[in-house]
Amino acid sequence: MRLLTLKRLCLSLPGWKTINRRRTWARQNPVQAPRGTRDFAPHEMATRRLVEHTLRRVLNSFNYREIQTPAFEHLDLFLAKSGEGIREELYAFKDKGGRDLCLRPELTAPAMRFYHTRLSREPKPLRVYYLGPCYRYDRPQTGRYREFWQVGVEVVGEIGPRGHAELLALALELFSAAGLKNLVLRVGHLDVLRNLVEEMLGVPRADQAPLMRLVDKKDFDGIRTWASARGLSKPVVDKFLTVFEATRLSDLKSAVAESGAAQGAFDHLEQVLAGLEAFGAPAGRIQFDPTIARGLDYYHGLVFELDCPDLGAEKQLLGGGEYKLAALFDAQQEPTIGFALGFDRLLVALERAHALPEPDVRTDVVVASLVPEAHNTARRLAMAMRAQGQRVELDLTDRGPKKAVQRAMQIKARRVALLGQRELEAATVTLKDMDSGAQESVPLDAAAAAPT
Amino acid sequence: MRLLTLKRLCLSLPGWKTINRRRTWARQNPVQAPRGTRDFAPHEMATRRLVEHTLRRVLNSFNYREIQTPAFEHLDLFLAKSGEGIREELYAFKDKGGRDLCLRPELTAPAMRFYHTRLSREPKPLRVYYLGPCYRYDRPQTGRYREFWQVGVEVVGEIGPRGHAELLALALELFSAAGLKNLVLRVGHLDVLRNLVEEMLGVPRADQAPLMRLVDKKDFDGIRTWASARGLSKPVVDKFLTVFEATRLSDLKSAVAESGAAQGAFDHLEQVLAGLEAFGAPAGRIQFDPTIARGLDYYHGLVFELDCPDLGAEKQLLGGGEYKLAALFDAQQEPTIGFALGFDRLLVALERAHALPEPDVRTDVVVASLVPEAHNTARRLAMAMRAQGQRVELDLTDRGPKKAVQRAMQIKARRVALLGQRELEAATVTLKDMDSGAQESVPLDAAAAAPT
Repeated sequence: MRLLTLKRLCLSLPGWKTINRRRTWARQNPVQAPRGTRDFAPHEMATRRLVEHTLRRVLNSFNYREIQTPAFEHLDLFLAKSGEGIREELYAFKDKGGRDLCLRPELTAPAMRFYHTRLSREPKPLRVYYLGPCYRYDRPQTGRYREFWQVGVEVVGEIGPRGHAELLALALELFSAAGLKNLVLRVGHLDVLRNLVEEMLGVPRADQAPLMRLVDKKDFDGIRTWASARGLSKPVVDKFLTVFEATRLSDLKSAVAESGAAQGAFDHLEQVLAGLEAFGAPAGRIQFDPTIARGLDYYHGLVFELDCPDLGAEKQLLGGGEYKLAALFDAQQEPTIGFALGFDRLLVALERAHALPEPDVRTDVVVASLVPEAHNTARRLAMAMRAQGQRVELDLTDRGPKKAVQRAMQIKARRVALLGQRELEAATVTLKDMDSGAQESVPLDAAAAAPT
Repeated sequence: MRLLTLKRLCLSLPGWKTINRRRTWARQNPVQAPRGTRDFAPHEMATRRLVEHTLRRVLNSFNYREIQTPAFEHLDLFLAKSGEGIREELYAFKDKGGRDLCLRPELTAPAMRFYHTRLSREPKPLRVYYLGPCYRYDRPQTGRYREFWQVGVEVVGEIGPRGHAELLALALELFSAAGLKNLVLRVGHLDVLRNLVEEMLGVPRADQAPLMRLVDKKDFDGIRTWASARGLSKPVVDKFLTVFEATRLSDLKSAVAESGAAQGAFDHLEQVLAGLEAFGAPAGRIQFDPTIARGLDYYHGLVFELDCPDLGAEKQLLGGGEYKLAALFDAQQEPTIGFALGFDRLLVALERAHALPEPDVRTDVVVASLVPEAHNTARRLAMAMRAQGQRVELDLTDRGPKKAVQRAMQIKARRVALLGQRELEAATVTLKDMDSGAQESVPLDAAAAAPT
């Protein structure tokens, strides 16, 4: 009732029209970030930067170099890479010059575009990493957003099974450095799988795509239907399906020995897995998984996925493998392998595991001048403390020590530095520790250093 | 001729059709980043991260907190803030739900949207900063891109002239910490200007917008034309124009004293400028500039711009002031002030001044196992060195010490660590310094530490 009266009063005032126009805008456009995107508050951002810092530290230590590409690309880049099907998931638009562009849904294609335009003469193996937002028009759900962050690496040049082992060690190290312990790395090899399909089922590689998609989904009924449509006999299919029951590489030994052509890939995979232990990768976290097919045609050779079982249906944190994209750039194929991890999902996993790092975001000192004559001294002290790396707020309330201490309490500062008439005359400053309550008088020229 | 023959040969091969389809794509879509955007190579990225790190260090020391908002927003946010005119510069698109979105052209409106949705209950003054890409459909030119990076701050809550002085000190400190010396900070006050216009020319505030745009462009002929169209006499206009000849605040003293209403703003500005010196801001770099009008209606009060004269026409590196945007969010206005700087243009300025920082991106060690039995020892050593913060490449060539040293030379590594049969037996490693050529044998368990 009171509100209604107020509204009537407002309507009679001359300014109401303008206010009303603005209100209409605010109502029509919920004052929110667009659906599926997020704003990050200071404490969220500090946590994200801390995890990002850990990942960068590990990537640097493995001698990967950061690259960056634009947030949008020519639409055709992703259509050529992933097929027309991806169009539905893209934020596509035309620029004012009529170019078809889209926000990047992933970073491997842009990284390879960059490699082929400017980096192809760098010494091989070339190791790069990237960290940035990607965009997919997807149904938002837990740990899944329309604007999401990916961290990924690409290696160009021959690195063999020893290099592949090191790449997997890097994938594991990224997560364990971030604090995530409950992990499973599943590793497979498409040339083992494809050779077995060719030799056991008699299906040539060119015809394998529909089957690979069924394998990727672990849709065994689908595989049976597909096989019977191709006229394959039940015993042949049954025998083939036992391949997917393998949980250790050695389970496949006999099937591979019979097939022959899969042997080289099998040996490669065996060497990769054998090399992992010396990197400190805990054996219990690594599984052979013959069902990884990675859906898309440009994958071949080594493929792998990393899960955090705590996350349920959205458990996959990382995926990667060897791939061939050079044809998109009209270039000669070189060996390429890489992986990408979901940064947002990693944060969800850390939160579920109670392993999110606590960033230190406390204000170190509130510097308060209690008399106008102390303002310049306070400014100089604040700047000297800042030069020492401290986070300093210069108090502006100008209303005595009580108010300054209240402000320090309000923003949870570690210390407060008080500069009054007495301090000015003695060239000192009164430093109060907000946690212990201890207070001391310190010479001005020694006050800039942080307490040890 | 030879190429032509090769092409004919290719055309007769069965694979040519596929290759040709891919070639067509590559020709139609130059394998480039979209116009006005850039890829950043490892050495460029390392430089950018180094400058970014310096800016963050200064922002943290002034106790600003990082926030982040999405790359795109509801289109109406920017239309409501800046008017229909900005539409031409926006990358606008509809999402698949029919929402009108656009890539953000700047970050103040998103920051304020975020503030009003989730941060408005934080203790005041609230100080936030952001650092991220923005997008404008603009004609690309030196230091001006369609994807460009902005670093900015916003302060919500009353901070008065002392707080304003500190904000300007922060603006200067960001650049001088980054290494830029040749700077001019120009400071004005819109309430001085608007009151003088009102009192000297008799033009009420509501009618001042066209004049303010002319002032902003320093278009004095335009001002005369506009004034005569309004029937203002030449002597009145002449007297008004002398205001713009002021280069020091004191030059305006008499004009302001005559006007009266401008006095409060004049005093505020005087206090801001007087407070700057104690922050270490060199007086020679700070100018009073009565012509800063900042174009748009939402600015009021203190306004400022920072130039690097080395950059010629594109000299402005930073702009800011007090503004009022709360009405967009149907919220009560609180005092708000902020600034944004062009990160890309700062880099151009640093380059011109030969002040770009040189990032240290050298590989610290190439670890090479010269016999297969040493592979696991090499892996363990590499991981131990990495844990110490070193950048380590595990050599994969496996072809003797000469090749390993060649690789270390090729990638300009600092050191190479050789593990052969002899080293394995003695539990040592041979460390060779690539700069001095000095070589020493070190016990394995002491080899992980970086040289001091």
